[in-house]
Amino acid sequence: MIRVSIIGSGNVAQHLVSAFMKTDAVELVQVLARHPEHLKQLLDSSQIISDYHQLQEADLYIIAVTDNAIAEVSKQIPFSKLVAHTSGSIAMNVLSDHHRKAVFYPLQTFTKNKPVDFSRIPIGLESEHASDFEIIKQVASAISDHVFAIDSAQRKALHVAAVFVNNFTNHLYQIGADICNEHQLPFDILKPLIEETTAKIMVLSPAEAQTGPAKRKDQQTIEAHLAILNDANQKAIYTLLTQSIQKHE
Amino acid sequence: MIRVSIIGSGNVAQHLVSAFMKTDAVELVQVLARHPEHLKQLLDSSQIISDYHQLQEADLYIIAVTDNAIAEVSKQIPFSKLVAHTSGSIAMNVLSDHHRKAVFYPLQTFTKNKPVDFSRIPIGLESEHASDFEIIKQVASAISDHVFAIDSAQRKALHVAAVFVNNFTNHLYQIGADICNEHQLPFDILKPLIEETTAKIMVLSPAEAQTGPAKRKDQQTIEAHLAILNDANQKAIYTLLTQSIQKHE
Repeated sequence: MIRVSIIGSGNVAQHLVSAFMKTDAVELVQVLARHPEHLKQLLDSSQIISDYHQLQEADLYIIAVTDNAIAEVSKQIPFSKLVAHTSGSIAMNVLSDHHRKAVFYPLQTFTKNKPVDFSRIPIGLESEHASDFEIIKQVASAISDHVFAIDSAQRKALHVAAVFVNNFTNHLYQIGADICNEHQLPFDILKPLIEETTAKIMVLSPAEAQTGPAKRKDQQTIEAHLAILNDANQKAIYTLLTQSIQKHE
Repeated sequence: MIRVSIIGSGNVAQHLVSAFMKTDAVELVQVLARHPEHLKQLLDSSQIISDYHQLQEADLYIIAVTDNAIAEVSKQIPFSKLVAHTSGSIAMNVLSDHHRKAVFYPLQTFTKNKPVDFSRIPIGLESEHASDFEIIKQVASAISDHVFAIDSAQRKALHVAAVFVNNFTNHLYQIGADICNEHQLPFDILKPLIEETTAKIMVLSPAEAQTGPAKRKDQQTIEAHLAILNDANQKAIYTLLTQSIQKHE
C-alpha cells in the first residue's frame, strides 16, 4: 500500500485528509500541521505532528500549504523523497532539488466545514520522473474518478480559467445580491436562475447557452439597464461584458 | 376556474403552456401563435390559433412575445380584458389602455426542449388594479411555489441582476472554455468546479463564498495570470473584475 503524508492544515489539506481516510488504497501516515487543532476531528491525534523531526518515512509527501510557503516547506522535509505540491499556479521546480518533484492539483474550491465529493473532483498530475507518475496516479485514483496528466503551462492556464468560472462568477453573484439589496429584493429570488444557468452548461456549450440583451444586440434594453445601475463599477462591468459577448464568435 | 389564453410561441410561451397543461387550477383556453408548429407537441391543435379574430373570451391574456412587440400585440386583442406581459424590462403601461394591465414575470432562462420545474421558478406580479392582483396570483400560484409582488422599478432592477448572474456568468464560462481550448484541455474539467461554485452560493452569502487571488490580494498570482492571458479582452475583464472584488466590502 502506498504510504502518504500531508503537510498543511488549511482547506485543501483538510479535504485531502478526509478523502484519504475513506480509502483503503492509500495509507495516510501523518499530517504535519502548524495548526493541529484544525485536524482533530479528522484523524487520530497520534498521526498529527507539528515538527519536521517527527516526520516518518513515506512514499509520497503532499505539500498543501499557501503558495509562497511551498519552496521553504519542501526544504524542511528531512528525507530525499517524492514530494508533490497542490497549487494551480506554482511551477513544479520550486520544490527543493533534493526531492523527486511532482504536482497533485485538485481543481476545486474548498470551503471549511462544507464536505465535497472528492470522487468528482478532477486531479491534474505532473511528475519530474516518468517512473513516479504511476505512484501519484495511484494515489489520485484512490480518491478521484477524474485523474489526468497536465504539464505546468497547462496547469497555470487551467488555474486562470478556474478564476473566471469560480472567483469571478461568484463576484457576479455578489453584484446580483447588491442590486437586489438596493431595491429591497431578497437575493434568494435569483437562486433558481443561478442553478439553471449552471444546469444548462452541463448539457449545452457556452455558445449555445448564451442568451440576453447583449447576445440579441438589443441596444434599447442595454441602455435601459445602464440607466438603472447607480454604481460606476457595476456600469463598467456591464459595459465590458456586454461588448465581450458581442465581439465573441 | 380561471380561464387563461396565451399569445406567443417562443420559449417563454412554450414553457408556460406546458406548465398550465399540468395544473387543474387553471383552464388554458387558447394559444395564439405566429408559429403554430412550435406548439403542436404541447396541446390539442383545436386550441392553437393564429388569428386574433378566433380569440375567445378569457379571464386573463398572457402576452409572451418579444419586448418590442408587446404594445402592438396588446392592441390586437379584440376585448377589454385583464392582460399581462411577461417581460422583465418593459413597463406595465406599454399595454393598451383599453385593457386592465398586469405583469406576469417568470424569472428564469428558458431553453428550447429543455424541461424546467416551473414550481421552483419565482414569478413576479404587478397589476394596475388591486382587485386584479388576486387573479394573477391564483394563476401564478397554480404553477409556481414562489410568487411575489414586485413593482416596475424593482422588476427592471431584478432583470439587470439576472443579466449579471445568468448572461454574464455564462460568458465567464465561455472564457473558461476558450482558455481550455487554447491549451488543449477539455472544458469538462471545469464542470465540477462550476457546480460547486453554485452549490456554495445556495448555503453561503457571496461575500462568504468569495475566494481567489483577488480576494487574497495576491498580486504575484494576479500578475502571473495576466501574463498567461493572450487575449486583450480577457485581460481587461480579469483586471476589472479583480479590482471590483478588491474594492468590494
